[in-house]
Amino acid sequence: MASMLKGIAASNGIAIAKAYRLIEPDLTVSKQTITAPSEETARFQEAVNISKSELQAIRDNAEKQLGSDKAAIFDAHLLVLSDPELIAPIEDKIQNEQVNAEFALKETADMFVMMFEQMDNEYMKERAADIRDVTKRVLSHLLGVQIPNPSMISEEVIIIAEDLTPSDTAQLNRTYVKGFTTNIGGRTSHSAIMARSMEIPAVVGTKEATESIQNGDLVIVDGINGEVHINPTPELVQKYEQEHAAYGEQKAEWAKLVNEKTVSADGRHVELAANIGTPKDLEGVKSNGGEAVGLYRTEFLYMGRDQLPTEDEQFDAYKAVLEGMEGKPVVVRTLDIGGDKELPYLDLPKEMNPFLGFRAIRLCLEEQDIFRTQLRALLRASKYGNLKIMFPMIATLDEFRQAKAILEEEKQTLLTQGVEVADRIETGIMVEIPSTAVMADTFAKEVDFFSIGTNDLIQYTMAADRMNERVSYLYQPYNPAILRLVKMVIDAAHKEGKWAGMCGEMAGDETAIPLLLGLGLDEFSMSATSILRARSIIKRLSQPEMEQLANEVLGLRTAEEVVNAVQAAISK
Amino acid sequence: MASMLKGIAASNGIAIAKAYRLIEPDLTVSKQTITAPSEETARFQEAVNISKSELQAIRDNAEKQLGSDKAAIFDAHLLVLSDPELIAPIEDKIQNEQVNAEFALKETADMFVMMFEQMDNEYMKERAADIRDVTKRVLSHLLGVQIPNPSMISEEVIIIAEDLTPSDTAQLNRTYVKGFTTNIGGRTSHSAIMARSMEIPAVVGTKEATESIQNGDLVIVDGINGEVHINPTPELVQKYEQEHAAYGEQKAEWAKLVNEKTVSADGRHVELAANIGTPKDLEGVKSNGGEAVGLYRTEFLYMGRDQLPTEDEQFDAYKAVLEGMEGKPVVVRTLDIGGDKELPYLDLPKEMNPFLGFRAIRLCLEEQDIFRTQLRALLRASKYGNLKIMFPMIATLDEFRQAKAILEEEKQTLLTQGVEVADRIETGIMVEIPSTAVMADTFAKEVDFFSIGTNDLIQYTMAADRMNERVSYLYQPYNPAILRLVKMVIDAAHKEGKWAGMCGEMAGDETAIPLLLGLGLDEFSMSATSILRARSIIKRLSQPEMEQLANEVLGLRTAEEVVNAVQAAISK
Repeated sequence: MASMLKGIAASNGIAIAKAYRLIEPDLTVSKQTITAPSEETARFQEAVNISKSELQAIRDNAEKQLGSDKAAIFDAHLLVLSDPELIAPIEDKIQNEQVNAEFALKETADMFVMMFEQMDNEYMKERAADIRDVTKRVLSHLLGVQIPNPSMISEEVIIIAEDLTPSDTAQLNRTYVKGFTTNIGGRTSHSAIMARSMEIPAVVGTKEATESIQNGDLVIVDGINGEVHINPTPELVQKYEQEHAAYGEQKAEWAKLVNEKTVSADGRHVELAANIGTPKDLEGVKSNGGEAVGLYRTEFLYMGRDQLPTEDEQFDAYKAVLEGMEGKPVVVRTLDIGGDKELPYLDLPKEMNPFLGFRAIRLCLEEQDIFRTQLRALLRASKYGNLKIMFPMIATLDEFRQAKAILEEEKQTLLTQGVEVADRIETGIMVEIPSTAVMADTFAKEVDFFSIGTNDLIQYTMAADRMNERVSYLYQPYNPAILRLVKMVIDAAHKEGKWAGMCGEMAGDETAIPLLLGLGLDEFSMSATSILRARSIIKRLSQPEMEQLANEVLGLRTAEEVVNAVQAAISK
Repeated sequence: MASMLKGIAASNGIAIAKAYRLIEPDLTVSKQTITAPSEETARFQEAVNISKSELQAIRDNAEKQLGSDKAAIFDAHLLVLSDPELIAPIEDKIQNEQVNAEFALKETADMFVMMFEQMDNEYMKERAADIRDVTKRVLSHLLGVQIPNPSMISEEVIIIAEDLTPSDTAQLNRTYVKGFTTNIGGRTSHSAIMARSMEIPAVVGTKEATESIQNGDLVIVDGINGEVHINPTPELVQKYEQEHAAYGEQKAEWAKLVNEKTVSADGRHVELAANIGTPKDLEGVKSNGGEAVGLYRTEFLYMGRDQLPTEDEQFDAYKAVLEGMEGKPVVVRTLDIGGDKELPYLDLPKEMNPFLGFRAIRLCLEEQDIFRTQLRALLRASKYGNLKIMFPMIATLDEFRQAKAILEEEKQTLLTQGVEVADRIETGIMVEIPSTAVMADTFAKEVDFFSIGTNDLIQYTMAADRMNERVSYLYQPYNPAILRLVKMVIDAAHKEGKWAGMCGEMAGDETAIPLLLGLGLDEFSMSATSILRARSIIKRLSQPEMEQLANEVLGLRTAEEVVNAVQAAISK
């Protein structure tokens, strides 16, 4: 039966394909007495054998796609399944205690896992993890439920999930994944940002996608209106196929703007820049006509590995981006780790409120070795392009002064050593903490530029965790309080002859762009895939008109009033 | 050997007494093979017997001090120790397996605890807790370590602890506890607030009090300078005894101000109000000359129990406070639960960032039954005094409008039912979220008053958890950003003919008072014990001079510059 879910439109476009549920199945086991132990043992052996051939297939696929070192983990899993030390006690238990295979497996495996985990030895702990993984697989076959193997997808699908983690998305095969929908998340959640970077439609925060959608259901993800249609009527499919085609035409229209400057209807030029995470993202920046990199998130260099990146590894990455941008500005944000982004090898203490904790510049000023290594890599790379360095999570002028002083020290040391460093490197800050927005006039005397990080600025200004569903109604980019702070920052920059950009999600938002243009924002940095649309919006707007609109909405009382005022103005 | 620790001065005054360590001892157990099981069994029985007589004494003491229902818990513990179902298996294990008594006890008790906990039954879960408690006590005797029994303290002591929880402090006998010092915490931590309300000196955040101080060490807690002296020289003791006496004299001097109005040197009157938690606190408000209750934290009515308080229970408490204040203003804050304050019986979901989560008004607007019950109790009590209702954690005008509408609805319902309600009840908000400070001008048109909650306002404005040691350097009441927000709020209130108060820790702070007077604050609400000192400070200050000072510091760049400017000005 056809049905529909509403959610948050997280990434533009239309996708139509079969559902693929990326969901951990329920593997709860209960103890049962059995009467035919030999049959039960046979059932167990059968489940082991199926698991083995599955693992073999996953292993071969992983080797082909990711190389033999990534495949090694599955070799370890296969070994576990052939280990008589694990298998024999399970079979004994079935025979002697006359219990069901699920229970015998679970009890025995749990005992081994606990034993290995208690040993203070990394190797044994990994064995415990292997046993846990393999047990899940065998259990799923005994219980007749399915464990998803996203790496094995071989036809076009829509992914259905509670949420998608970075490691989930890393496993997805971009050829076959046409779109996705999740129960939780908002426009700034990881899954939403990933979808935009993969340029696939997504609807997040549907609350019940995993409940309502079964494997193989035909699903339409409408990432424009935030709708998910389940087993739609043929008429609806046709309508969406037309919309999909129309969206493709619109994208083709936007694509004509790829080599144009971004200029408003009355001739004001602003810079449309891209947020990137790795040198690989440059391709998208170019194909979407990015005029700069407005935010290079360097965290990815530090993530998904088991030690800090060396100075040379970092140098190579920074150089690649600077050279790739051929003299266009590249704003590199120094390490912004902590909060929701953890590095296991740094062993940071668990915090009660990580978003209000020891992260980003706070961590870098204390762990100076990490910070200095990054700054040296940046300084050495500076001669290969137009580098600007930006410090994240600056709350006080003292912090900026300290960070700047450390940068100067490293620069002097390098110069003394005869290393070439660019003459002039602009040094700026993220404005993402309310205190810094309120004090922007004093900061503007000392920094070279501001980049407003709206994702965090909104969450701190409204005191609402942007990842927390229960307070998501307070994540209000259009609350006049946010717009007033944005204005303070832009005005303060201009008064001192500096520039102000924005690198939060808001910078690419259709409703925000008119206001930001009106408030005088100089640089808009967004997902590369949003740039062409933003350019086409700005081309139609008049700066003086938007300035008047912005001044009007600053006096309004609620976010709703602001949105209504903007929509009334631009639909005129 | 004499030594000294530095910490944070959390509560004024000097205390000199013997140390009492309120610390959980290490009860780690290792398995040992023994050769004389009968002797080991006797050792076990001895430990059980000592534990029994200890529990008997604690039980009798609890009955005397707290009544027989509180003593019942110890009866349950005594029963556990006489239960052969627990004792026999332990003795068997010692005999049959030839293991040490500690191991036999731990293994057996853990098994029972696990068994009881897995039963889905409240009664059995409580039995599990009883067994755990009792086991700890017997283990401590077997291991020869001491479990503290704070309720049994019978001489003057200084409490030494890692930190003090609300339940720890509830157990302390105020007659004998002369002061305390903790490893962690800051001026706004629970332990610090408790110390000020108990009027005992405290130094928190010493990092190593529990490591450096042994039971029985002579300790001086210098709550004025934030120093803790361990086994001081007789000369130092004498010096501190003199200071203690001098502090006593100063307090006597302040005490003369108890019935005076609070008036600056040039004649401007401000209101000095008290923060309270229960009707019992009124005594302190009166003895310290409080002119109002500026913050009645109603959370305590909801805490330390296993279900919500009824409307009548709440009514009684509110009526008691309103009557007790005899027509003076009483600002009651509606339920501010969530964040660091949990209510087990509400079963709130665990949040990643509770300080940015579902708390206070956010929870009340969703769980309207709880909110409406409280509002009805308040409305019914309103005719007994001068009630003002204040909503906490307001981030948007919508939230205030919703809360106000619910209040109006309940009022109309009560009036229809013939219940008497005060004609005019002022309705205001806490300003503790940056968005609300920034939008104060629009709020001022709709609220009757503001009360600035600096503890939270500072933590959100600086994006730094005030409980997190690693970012405590960012808890900056004197950051010009905070002062600018405070000014916005006060100016906005005055422009609309409303009043602005402050009920965070900052309102009672010696360095803040001159600035707040200068910024035009109308009401200062603080720990009752800080009122007389604040009154004596204000009497010496000139409002116009402080206004000039405040305007100067708003243009400064750092908190340090502000503090220096204030100190230079008031020492003139």
